[in-house]
Amino acid sequence: MARDLSEFELGYDIPALPGMTEAEVQTPCLLLDLNALERNIRKLGDYVRARGLRHRSHGKMHKSVDVQRLQQELGGAVGVCCQKVSEAEAFARGGITDILLSNQVRDPHKIDRLARLPQLGATLTVCIDDLPNVAELSAAVSRHGTKLDCYIELDCGAGRCGVSTPDEALAIARAIAAAPGLRFTGLQAYNGALQHLPTAARRAQAFTRVTQIVRDTIAVLHDAGLPPEQVSGAGSGSYYLEADSGLFTELQCGSYAFMDASYAAVEGEGSLPLGQTFEPALFLLTSIMSKARPGVAVCDAGLKAQSAESGLPAIHGQAGLHFTACNDEHGLIADPQGQLAVNDRLRLVPSHCDPTCNLHDWYVGMRGDVVECLWPVTARGKCL
Amino acid sequence: MARDLSEFELGYDIPALPGMTEAEVQTPCLLLDLNALERNIRKLGDYVRARGLRHRSHGKMHKSVDVQRLQQELGGAVGVCCQKVSEAEAFARGGITDILLSNQVRDPHKIDRLARLPQLGATLTVCIDDLPNVAELSAAVSRHGTKLDCYIELDCGAGRCGVSTPDEALAIARAIAAAPGLRFTGLQAYNGALQHLPTAARRAQAFTRVTQIVRDTIAVLHDAGLPPEQVSGAGSGSYYLEADSGLFTELQCGSYAFMDASYAAVEGEGSLPLGQTFEPALFLLTSIMSKARPGVAVCDAGLKAQSAESGLPAIHGQAGLHFTACNDEHGLIADPQGQLAVNDRLRLVPSHCDPTCNLHDWYVGMRGDVVECLWPVTARGKCL
Repeated sequence: MARDLSEFELGYDIPALPGMTEAEVQTPCLLLDLNALERNIRKLGDYVRARGLRHRSHGKMHKSVDVQRLQQELGGAVGVCCQKVSEAEAFARGGITDILLSNQVRDPHKIDRLARLPQLGATLTVCIDDLPNVAELSAAVSRHGTKLDCYIELDCGAGRCGVSTPDEALAIARAIAAAPGLRFTGLQAYNGALQHLPTAARRAQAFTRVTQIVRDTIAVLHDAGLPPEQVSGAGSGSYYLEADSGLFTELQCGSYAFMDASYAAVEGEGSLPLGQTFEPALFLLTSIMSKARPGVAVCDAGLKAQSAESGLPAIHGQAGLHFTACNDEHGLIADPQGQLAVNDRLRLVPSHCDPTCNLHDWYVGMRGDVVECLWPVTARGKCL
Repeated sequence: MARDLSEFELGYDIPALPGMTEAEVQTPCLLLDLNALERNIRKLGDYVRARGLRHRSHGKMHKSVDVQRLQQELGGAVGVCCQKVSEAEAFARGGITDILLSNQVRDPHKIDRLARLPQLGATLTVCIDDLPNVAELSAAVSRHGTKLDCYIELDCGAGRCGVSTPDEALAIARAIAAAPGLRFTGLQAYNGALQHLPTAARRAQAFTRVTQIVRDTIAVLHDAGLPPEQVSGAGSGSYYLEADSGLFTELQCGSYAFMDASYAAVEGEGSLPLGQTFEPALFLLTSIMSKARPGVAVCDAGLKAQSAESGLPAIHGQAGLHFTACNDEHGLIADPQGQLAVNDRLRLVPSHCDPTCNLHDWYVGMRGDVVECLWPVTARGKCL
């Protein structure tokens, strides 16, 4: 077994090997604090179980079969959510057998791929917000001799995808119930727009729209003899609202496992910051590569190692240092006290975990200061 | 030969096959308009040759061996620039034999990899802005029996990497000249901060700092008997300033080849927008996947298909449509006239080409409406 990265051929650029210390890990790369990750996963799992609900963890955040398995084994997650057919393929090929595609699939070739996916041994659920999609999906599963479960997506106030009235939902539910190969199993009711509202009060206010459309739609479907088995939704910023609503059966939290600087700052339940409920478990390890000017350190983590559209990263455990600019290949750090030297390492907390994870090929799993595992970002770049 | 994407195993998700029309290409994916790309490459190549200068095209933008070869064959580029050791490895393994690493390399393992790279048959040049780096690099090449050319990086006003005075440059030049295995060959004088200044007048003003430090440094080095063979710098927003300065010998333009919405808007020479000098050759092809609300179309290109820290993409050739929000997996398009239907395709012009290209595995090369080639994004994700 290789003991040193220099034993590998040039071009085979993995960031670490198991057994290395953090000081030996190549930068920039994603670190997972496995102890923190496991605590976050257990914490949400216990919360969901205590309320008799299901957790279907969102794999669009981590895109990792290994993280998903941990969420199922330690946190009792029933399966994965993902957003793209190519992501669903990656999870199915990685052995995940219960997959919700929490999105619409409309392109004929993608519908065909989706309809073939149960042949890999997975149960697939897809979301629908438009009546013609029912016939498209039914024709495809009939062609391949497979079956799909279907959720109807409701627009809960985000103004993106989803039907806006219970009557539209009922028309689609009836069409699904009559369509060969399809089964109506639930409602998709996620409001992404409320996840990052900064105060718990504003989030609770925005949640009234969720409550209203979900309650009204359940009533209409129930009266028509088509009650949904599952009502699915929630994110890391709102999960306690869905859990306490008495309406939801399945939560889709994703970011809670890794956390990021954006989520850490918003209030969760009551006035408690979400960063006090869940710990940062994902870090971007970076090295200082130039100190040419006093007061400024340049690190090797720029826009190709982190997504910056939601702001700049936090610097973990280092008072007196501030990340001030993210260029293509460099990060600039204000270092007024001159704390930093070339080759010093810092752990950054990315501002937005989902698109940051999607930039990398590997997670370096740390147990304390020692590399325990190297996990591929299985569905990295799977945007088809 | 496969004629249809459905002949491939699930999980093998390439976006297109040669011979397909644009309507058959899977979305979201990067398209290259090969005719526009070739015109941009020839245009800058002719410009540089007419002035007796060299063009060293910046591969950090495209990360593609195939695009780089085109820049060398059609545009006369002498070689590639890149920013990371792992990128340099990808270009060297792809057969590019003249590589400038236009950045500092300070980590001991990365220095070791850099020192081994000439064994792949490439001439490597690296940038230095700190005296101790000279001994680090010299020790590594001595260990591996290789050689490195060295540019000294000047801070031309961006306040990032680079020495700030001619005397610092001279001290480093003397150390390089005395160090076994190293050769002092030039100055790296790039000011990234001026590339996107919106008016030509502001850019010309910022360029006075570049002129001053480059001229003063050349004079000091000349007097010391260490004149630089090359003075290298320039980007797509400033290349005409470096070309006309009488100081520079080598231009490093990258974005000119693909262009993006940010560069298209800034003034180039005089008051001419840069978008009138070079054409958009890179597009992000996207499909409409939901039309649940009047006036809004939801497309399948979100933050995992494009970088949004520099703004939202332009919609190519479609008056009356505006991209209004970029979520993780979705783009929202204002469509007040109801022009769009589900499965309609749009070409987006990304706001920032470099980090957008780095998200994708493939370029789909189009000749008119027909797919001519599928080129890998060779150095995608190579940030080590």
